Amino acid sequence: VATEDGAKLWGGRFAGDTDPIMKKFNASIPFDQRMWDADIRGSKAYAKALEKAQLVSTKEMEQILTGMDQIFEEWSTGVFLIKPEDEDIHTANERRLKSSCREAAHGFEPLLFYLVNQVVTDMRLWLRDAIKTLTDNSLQLISTMVERAAVEIDVLFPGYTHMQRAQPIRWSHWILSHAVALSRDVERLLEIKKRVNVLPLGSGAIAGTPFDIDRELLRKELGFDGISLNSMDATGQRDFIVEFLFWASLCLIHLSKMAEDLMLYSTKEFSFISLSDAYSTGSSLMPQKKNADSLELIRSKAGRVFGKCSGFMMTLKGLPSTYNKDLQEDKEAMFDCFDTVQAVLQVTTGVMSTLKINQSVMEAALSPDMLATDLAYYLVRKGVPFREAHGVSGKAVFAAESQHISLNQLTVEDLTAVSPLFGGDVSSVWDYRSSVEQYRAPGGTAKSSVAAQLQIKKLQFIE
Amino acid sequence: VATEDGAKLWGGRFAGDTDPIMKKFNASIPFDQRMWDADIRGSKAYAKALEKAQLVSTKEMEQILTGMDQIFEEWSTGVFLIKPEDEDIHTANERRLKSSCREAAHGFEPLLFYLVNQVVTDMRLWLRDAIKTLTDNSLQLISTMVERAAVEIDVLFPGYTHMQRAQPIRWSHWILSHAVALSRDVERLLEIKKRVNVLPLGSGAIAGTPFDIDRELLRKELGFDGISLNSMDATGQRDFIVEFLFWASLCLIHLSKMAEDLMLYSTKEFSFISLSDAYSTGSSLMPQKKNADSLELIRSKAGRVFGKCSGFMMTLKGLPSTYNKDLQEDKEAMFDCFDTVQAVLQVTTGVMSTLKINQSVMEAALSPDMLATDLAYYLVRKGVPFREAHGVSGKAVFAAESQHISLNQLTVEDLTAVSPLFGGDVSSVWDYRSSVEQYRAPGGTAKSSVAAQLQIKKLQFIE
Amino acid sequence: VATEDGAKLWGGRFAGDTDPIMKKFNASIPFDQRMWDADIRGSKAYAKALEKAQLVSTKEMEQILTGMDQIFEEWSTGVFLIKPEDEDIHTANERRLKSSCREAAHGFEPLLFYLVNQVVTDMRLWLRDAIKTLTDNSLQLISTMVERAAVEIDVLFPGYTHMQRAQPIRWSHWILSHAVALSRDVERLLEIKKRVNVLPLGSGAIAGTPFDIDRELLRKELGFDGISLNSMDATGQRDFIVEFLFWASLCLIHLSKMAEDLMLYSTKEFSFISLSDAYSTGSSLMPQKKNADSLELIRSKAGRVFGKCSGFMMTLKGLPSTYNKDLQEDKEAMFDCFDTVQAVLQVTTGVMSTLKINQSVMEAALSPDMLATDLAYYLVRKGVPFREAHGVSGKAVFAAESQHISLNQLTVEDLTAVSPLFGGDVSSVWDYRSSVEQYRAPGGTAKSSVAAQLQIKKLQFIE
Amino acid sequence: VATEDGAKLWGGRFAGDTDPIMKKFNASIPFDQRMWDADIRGSKAYAKALEKAQLVSTKEMEQILTGMDQIFEEWSTGVFLIKPEDEDIHTANERRLKSSCREAAHGFEPLLFYLVNQVVTDMRLWLRDAIKTLTDNSLQLISTMVERAAVEIDVLFPGYTHMQRAQPIRWSHWILSHAVALSRDVERLLEIKKRVNVLPLGSGAIAGTPFDIDRELLRKELGFDGISLNSMDATGQRDFIVEFLFWASLCLIHLSKMAEDLMLYSTKEFSFISLSDAYSTGSSLMPQKKNADSLELIRSKAGRVFGKCSGFMMTLKGLPSTYNKDLQEDKEAMFDCFDTVQAVLQVTTGVMSTLKINQSVMEAALSPDMLATDLAYYLVRKGVPFREAHGVSGKAVFAAESQHISLNQLTVEDLTAVSPLFGGDVSSVWDYRSSVEQYRAPGGTAKSSVAAQLQIKKLQFIE
Repeated sequence: VATEDGAKLWGGRFAGDTDPIMKKFNASIPFDQRMWDADIRGSKAYAKALEKAQLVSTKEMEQILTGMDQIFEEWSTGVFLIKPEDEDIHTANERRLKSSCREAAHGFEPLLFYLVNQVVTDMRLWLRDAIKTLTDNSLQLISTMVERAAVEIDVLFPGYTHMQRAQPIRWSHWILSHAVALSRDVERLLEIKKRVNVLPLGSGAIAGTPFDIDRELLRKELGFDGISLNSMDATGQRDFIVEFLFWASLCLIHLSKMAEDLMLYSTKEFSFISLSDAYSTGSSLMPQKKNADSLELIRSKAGRVFGKCSGFMMTLKGLPSTYNKDLQEDKEAMFDCFDTVQAVLQVTTGVMSTLKINQSVMEAALSPDMLATDLAYYLVRKGVPFREAHGVSGKAVFAAESQHISLNQLTVEDLTAVSPLFGGDVSSVWDYRSSVEQYRAPGGTAKSSVAAQLQIKKLQFIE
Repeated sequence: VATEDGAKLWGGRFAGDTDPIMKKFNASIPFDQRMWDADIRGSKAYAKALEKAQLVSTKEMEQILTGMDQIFEEWSTGVFLIKPEDEDIHTANERRLKSSCREAAHGFEPLLFYLVNQVVTDMRLWLRDAIKTLTDNSLQLISTMVERAAVEIDVLFPGYTHMQRAQPIRWSHWILSHAVALSRDVERLLEIKKRVNVLPLGSGAIAGTPFDIDRELLRKELGFDGISLNSMDATGQRDFIVEFLFWASLCLIHLSKMAEDLMLYSTKEFSFISLSDAYSTGSSLMPQKKNADSLELIRSKAGRVFGKCSGFMMTLKGLPSTYNKDLQEDKEAMFDCFDTVQAVLQVTTGVMSTLKINQSVMEAALSPDMLATDLAYYLVRKGVPFREAHGVSGKAVFAAESQHISLNQLTVEDLTAVSPLFGGDVSSVWDYRSSVEQYRAPGGTAKSSVAAQLQIKKLQFIE
Repeated sequence: VATEDGAKLWGGRFAGDTDPIMKKFNASIPFDQRMWDADIRGSKAYAKALEKAQLVSTKEMEQILTGMDQIFEEWSTGVFLIKPEDEDIHTANERRLKSSCREAAHGFEPLLFYLVNQVVTDMRLWLRDAIKTLTDNSLQLISTMVERAAVEIDVLFPGYTHMQRAQPIRWSHWILSHAVALSRDVERLLEIKKRVNVLPLGSGAIAGTPFDIDRELLRKELGFDGISLNSMDATGQRDFIVEFLFWASLCLIHLSKMAEDLMLYSTKEFSFISLSDAYSTGSSLMPQKKNADSLELIRSKAGRVFGKCSGFMMTLKGLPSTYNKDLQEDKEAMFDCFDTVQAVLQVTTGVMSTLKINQSVMEAALSPDMLATDLAYYLVRKGVPFREAHGVSGKAVFAAESQHISLNQLTVEDLTAVSPLFGGDVSSVWDYRSSVEQYRAPGGTAKSSVAAQLQIKKLQFIE
Repeated sequence: VATEDGAKLWGGRFAGDTDPIMKKFNASIPFDQRMWDADIRGSKAYAKALEKAQLVSTKEMEQILTGMDQIFEEWSTGVFLIKPEDEDIHTANERRLKSSCREAAHGFEPLLFYLVNQVVTDMRLWLRDAIKTLTDNSLQLISTMVERAAVEIDVLFPGYTHMQRAQPIRWSHWILSHAVALSRDVERLLEIKKRVNVLPLGSGAIAGTPFDIDRELLRKELGFDGISLNSMDATGQRDFIVEFLFWASLCLIHLSKMAEDLMLYSTKEFSFISLSDAYSTGSSLMPQKKNADSLELIRSKAGRVFGKCSGFMMTLKGLPSTYNKDLQEDKEAMFDCFDTVQAVLQVTTGVMSTLKINQSVMEAALSPDMLATDLAYYLVRKGVPFREAHGVSGKAVFAAESQHISLNQLTVEDLTAVSPLFGGDVSSVWDYRSSVEQYRAPGGTAKSSVAAQLQIKKLQFIE
């Protein structure tokens, strides 16, 4: 009625019973059908709880379980038919179940009416599995990096700060600096998993369930670690989604950082590494060109994923408590972040396992001026206060520049002219390998320290 | 070669010539095919420029134009077949063209090699049309709101600040406060359009085009307002996309704000409005319930669109200049924002043209205490300083409370006891219609002021 | 030289040795002086490590410790004088130390040269303490809410979904739904603390420390839980800051959600609660008005804190690895988020401990139509499939409406006319207290379930 | 009363009349005092409007104007004393005014009661001036860049795409690519200014002003371009702030992009440019090192400013219409963005006017393989289809590689062996200067095209 009058008065574009745009807006089945498996698992567990509560008979339960197995089969083989009236994955599955065992399926009806807790159960089951997959992908990448670091532990190259050459370091030290960041990502992911893996089913729409549904049985059947504490919170909160989106953002910021380094190293000017052809593309216009497309794609995805995170946070921010339709934005964000992070982890693993390093170029990029600090350390070890030693080293740099020679070409005589503490053993300073070996403290770039860092691979990320 | 060795050494997951994930990552055709029409228009204009530059003959040009028209036909009728090797819309169209006129199409080849400027041309053409559509949608919504405001100009209800009842205002004043915000959105959109509608074609990959391509001819053919000034900027900047994404975010923040108001007004507790059934849904669990799903969806989309904007800004932020593959994130963001804003504008138009107001409830929500300020104004008009008048009004409020009556039930005697300046004409204060009529200054809530605001409809948004 | 020539050629605004804006840009002492205490603690521990490494004598160490204690005293009493050349807190403290024991302080010099690891040590120490404070503030708020929920457990009011009245619930159920979210925040905060509480000192600028600095000794002295694994990562990563900023954002999104509910409940239209005067302000213009300023401020701060988080993420996103000056954005973000969250937690505690509920209004807002679902449950318990029961209940609603009476005014005869399964015991349905008692499953709104949720207070958040 | 009881029941931390944290939260004077000048200007204009409306006498108006001039003097000379009860700049100024002319100042009282429209007037006046300053700063930077581009127009260096060497371009072409982006920023800033420069004064708190305040007089006095259309919108919208924050974000993304390029160019590996000492810092640890701190700071600020923008957008997103206290987040964001952008623009101007280019290194970085495309163009000009020409060029590249010579060392005989169309004039291809001269179309890198781009300086950005 309202519609008709309204339409008459203000000439709105729409006067029927339902606005087709509204309908499209409302339907989540185009994307949430990915959770068909989680939904079937949830429904089967629920059938068992219904039977225990004597809301369906044992026979009915069995019909439901068989029916659900059949629906599983249909989805697995790609023959499940979504109908126009299916708004989301649960209504689709339940509609299908009724066509095979209408009576038995009646027990499900309240569940349908509590869609908000059914769908959030599906999401938690799905995301738990997704986290398992991403953990595996991350560990595979870490493992690839650690293996590579072990093999190439003797390669030196310049360490950069402020994008300027700073000190000689091991290439493996660089690799492991990124692997360590990824291992923190895995640690965080497992913490999130703990909070994802909590059963919301049995929370109804807001007040809880009025039936004797055994939530502990549901928890066990579905392999959840815990049971949600408060039904209003259980149906209305999406912290686990936000946490996951943020995790994805920070993880991809790490990979973007690594890609940025590699992109620098693969410029003509640095020429430290060459990407495998599988991870680069040529330019049809310029035959001499090889673009590191894979690195650019890795780098770009952090923004995409951050966008999902910040967008969903903004949506959440404006809400009062309990379920509001706005929460429907959760699923596309979750799926897209999973797909993106998984692809990026796999591509990065590919890149890291196939790139070639140009060891001679890397080592040629080390220059004696990068050892000026070492010259100061030499004096510090002989008792000179650091600042004074630093001053002496600066004078040596100046002496070398005056003679247009490099620092290591100064004779012992040249050096003793600057400070009497210099002796014949100063020649040991000019060795890049000796230089890096000074950094033996834990976390440093000495061979023993880097070798110790390889043990990150052994970290037990047990779920 | 690199791949093989790499694969051997570090056991990467992938050892072939191309990583299928990489390939999927790289391809944009799944989403950029939406620009098929823009791409065809761009190609036809380019054919004309090739002919003028004598790079193709007139006959060849005609073959190309005919070929492109045929491709247009195929897309229009849904029979165009995308092949696995088609990476994006331009390579798809050019591949198809060659199958019909290989020789003539040769002239296009450099264009293919300058994909970065071809694709950005497609985007600008597509977005220009999209902006036209969104301008129309916005104007239709404004127009609906203005019409409604004209019809219901005599309805009063409480104006709120801090979500607390403040002063009586006209319902139409509220409607127009949102329409005014939307009219700024239209103004901004037209400014953006001006910057979108600039021809980048003829910029090559970075240095420009080495052929005698007449960029002015291209501009005219494609209806662009101007020509990009610098080829490096033209191929590497995406300001026009960021501007559009931000525009979409701010526009939806406005609609979210309006939806938030309407959601309040449609609670049981306020009961000022009822949504049309077409824009609300019942609850299967709770028969008494009617949810304002449409408003929740409107409200939720601001976050989604902001996410696209902030995500793409983050991607852009980390880049050096000129084209980097990271820019490929631009298209999905653009398409999704267009689709979302268009749908939200249409649904909002539907909501605003069909909702029913409950005038009696709205007016019953006005209470004499909301006129305490008016009582003070009464005295100010008799020469009392405002603060003193305010104090007197406060005493009157207290007197009414002491007698457990409402403010307007005080007798003239009661009032003169508080201040001798009160006279018989004080009764005029207790009239809500008189109250709103005080606000006659431009922008105020008096009938004449609100009527003047209706003229926003007449604003000339000429493109 | 460059400057002069440059200045001549292109008329830049600046030609001296240092650009004062640059200098201001570079200095962090205006904000990082807050870490004076952390810096002193770090320096004292470092003095001990220097002594153990025989880089300073025992006597020198003692001089340093005494000097540092004196500096502590100066900061504590507000007499420490920052000089123009002090760029950050560490250089300030070290400069001051040298004025009291120049020779002894020489041992510190390399530390000064490794500012990047010294400052990040200061930050970790400071943030560890800040997290302790926020944990306490959060637990105090939870405790206040739990106490209140215990006292007011018998108060019922409408539970809302989609901002529409849904089902009767306990007021304490609502309180605890927010307390549960906060307890997850505490859990997350303690996880972050674990990653904050890791020693970076001894990582040098990038390669590690070349001296025999005992990092384990430093760890123990400073109470860190672990030692950073890789020196490049240790100096260049700011994950712990990002994690903290995100934590702050999500925590304030929770409090914003609660504030949004309370703001609704404190409108004239709902009138469920009244804020204490200490947390609201009157309007000088409108004497009848009382604004919930405290709630608006709580609500607004989530945006502020999210801004710090997203801004710093964007800054991080564009960086290559190791230390880059860009990281200097970390400190202001950290301080502002701490200050903001602490203030919001305290104000929220104040609001929650002083607001008054209007129990009669809350319970009067419950209406028989909110029990239509219960009527269906009544039949389900008698064996009717839910959907059928729901249909019957719908008919009852219609029957009541036809007679212009409320649902609970239907006689048993009226009801048996709809379904023969209704009996005299149906009257039990019309009791709101009975209704909520149905939800006895864990997490539900029955008294026993809510009482069980009170145990959240007992959660052991041991650090 | 509420407080006491509440405090008793739930042991809140706070039981007095006002919570000091709340008070601190509420006060904006610590930051909004920056607008003292704008507030005085607004007040003086308002005094004139009061007089015209006969709400104050001419004499009173003169007292107010004199009083305000005196307050101006106090602020200018730094002697104005803020008192604890001053919540914001307007209450401070009005409090001060009353101490000099209590009676006359009475007319201001309603203004005080309409703080929301007074403060937003102050903001618009302040921001209008700030935009003027930023426009000047931007134009100065553009001007510096254009001058530099004019002087160094003959310097060639490699143009990069995907961070890989692509084609030879002019250094000035690169400079101007960034100047063009900045000129769009100026264009956008002037559009925003138009929307900032609108008078809200006379909108009251929500309904408008009930007095005969001549808004047109106020507009003229304050130099506004227009008058706000709707009082609810005028007091509750902050679009002009959001627009400004977004503008600042996009502008700094542009400067970050330029800084990123310059940082690459200033690495040891590229060595194209050297920053002036005034814009770089040495490393005390490593004497050989010179860090481009200025560029890192420029690069980092985009994140900071984006954070302000996204944070404020999130705050806005969750609000209903009209004034809510949450809007108080607007000012700090506005001030910080102004300060940051202004400093960044000035530092960038300093950097660009003082850096030195290493022309020989830049030109030595050009290599014959970057001309492979030119070789193909040579053939295209002789009528060969591009793809075929490209194939021939590829063969030439291969021939050169086989002989271990560079492409330009192939003899004409070598080349004619590949294609008979090559002639003696092919030697012209190997000239980088000839190569860039091919790009004569508008926007290209030929000297004439770049020279045309210099005219950007002449753009009339008239306000």
